[in-house]
Amino acid sequence: MRLRNKPWAPEYLKENNDIVVEEASRWKGKWHDHFGNNHPLYVEIGSGKGKFVNELAEANPDINVIGLELYESVIVNGVERAVENRKPNLRFLQENAADLPQMFAAGEIDRLYINFTDPWPKKRHAKRRLTHEGFLELYREVLHREAEIHFKTDNQGLFEFSLESLSSSGAQLKNISLDLHQSEMEGNIMTEYEQKFSQKGMRIYRLEARLHHD
Amino acid sequence: MRLRNKPWAPEYLKENNDIVVEEASRWKGKWHDHFGNNHPLYVEIGSGKGKFVNELAEANPDINVIGLELYESVIVNGVERAVENRKPNLRFLQENAADLPQMFAAGEIDRLYINFTDPWPKKRHAKRRLTHEGFLELYREVLHREAEIHFKTDNQGLFEFSLESLSSSGAQLKNISLDLHQSEMEGNIMTEYEQKFSQKGMRIYRLEARLHHD
Repeated sequence: MRLRNKPWAPEYLKENNDIVVEEASRWKGKWHDHFGNNHPLYVEIGSGKGKFVNELAEANPDINVIGLELYESVIVNGVERAVENRKPNLRFLQENAADLPQMFAAGEIDRLYINFTDPWPKKRHAKRRLTHEGFLELYREVLHREAEIHFKTDNQGLFEFSLESLSSSGAQLKNISLDLHQSEMEGNIMTEYEQKFSQKGMRIYRLEARLHHD
Repeated sequence: MRLRNKPWAPEYLKENNDIVVEEASRWKGKWHDHFGNNHPLYVEIGSGKGKFVNELAEANPDINVIGLELYESVIVNGVERAVENRKPNLRFLQENAADLPQMFAAGEIDRLYINFTDPWPKKRHAKRRLTHEGFLELYREVLHREAEIHFKTDNQGLFEFSLESLSSSGAQLKNISLDLHQSEMEGNIMTEYEQKFSQKGMRIYRLEARLHHD
């Protein structure tokens, strides 16, 4: 993703700190209190320009939705969208996936979305891929026993790697699609990237995984 | 596969019973004696016209290779090829994969190949797919603890199903390729189908799986 410098971004995020939660670690173990209800909590890591979480929150008023995005100049897009069309069940955190256990208590997340994440194609960067076993161990800490990871990518190599990594960590895979937009899946919410790639006729790969076996 | 009636097939197979082993269950637990050596045993189920096992045996004189194929009019093709170019390490069995435990003792098989098997696309036929959990349980009985299943197909739906089925049975997946002929795999032996399909530009899917975890 090209990052444009947006000098106004820091102030804009501060102004909207009802949507972009500051010092997220304060709410660790208390996200139900934060949202003021007991709805399930779905988190997207690397939420980019925020189309996905905005549409997810809008379509599911009984789900609490949080988008994690580290880059200021990117996260503002999702926040702008949320400001234009306010949803009580949507928040953003300007945070890193590696810090999930600082922000969420054990079992606090009910579903994790990873959409079109950086494939880090070089072998020496494998540890940075968000489906590397190191990350899966972090997710296992914060995911509820019955929680699922929903993962989409257009990158064949990353999908192959992710299948092996999940299998190796003992995850249970289901609803695998090797060509999502030719499949029968209903209710798919597309990210910005997904729209662009699938319009070019590129395959989208998708899977669901449970890290905790029965 | 279209089956042609070959009235001469039964007699031909009987004449070559040094290659097509009759009453395979006699050799259960004794395949090393049968081959007269202690080499690893690789088995292909549904070996079709036998190109794959013939080439596998030829390329690997230190591996014992067995092709299982139920249909008389198909298995004769592989036997003819083996008669023309004899290999001491190749046998055929006119048998059904469901009967593997009658022909092989626990842990006797060192690798299992499943290539371009019937996808049985209707849900009510799922149990007939050779990667259905019912079959995986049979394979687990006869496969050595460190044995791998090597699986190839051009059928996207069957590959998706197989990933889920293997994952669900606790298998460990590796060397997954979602487009084998664009990948860097070396030494791939093509089946008759594979040649035909890949020439048409269709994707070939491949995986390796270990049923016994460490």
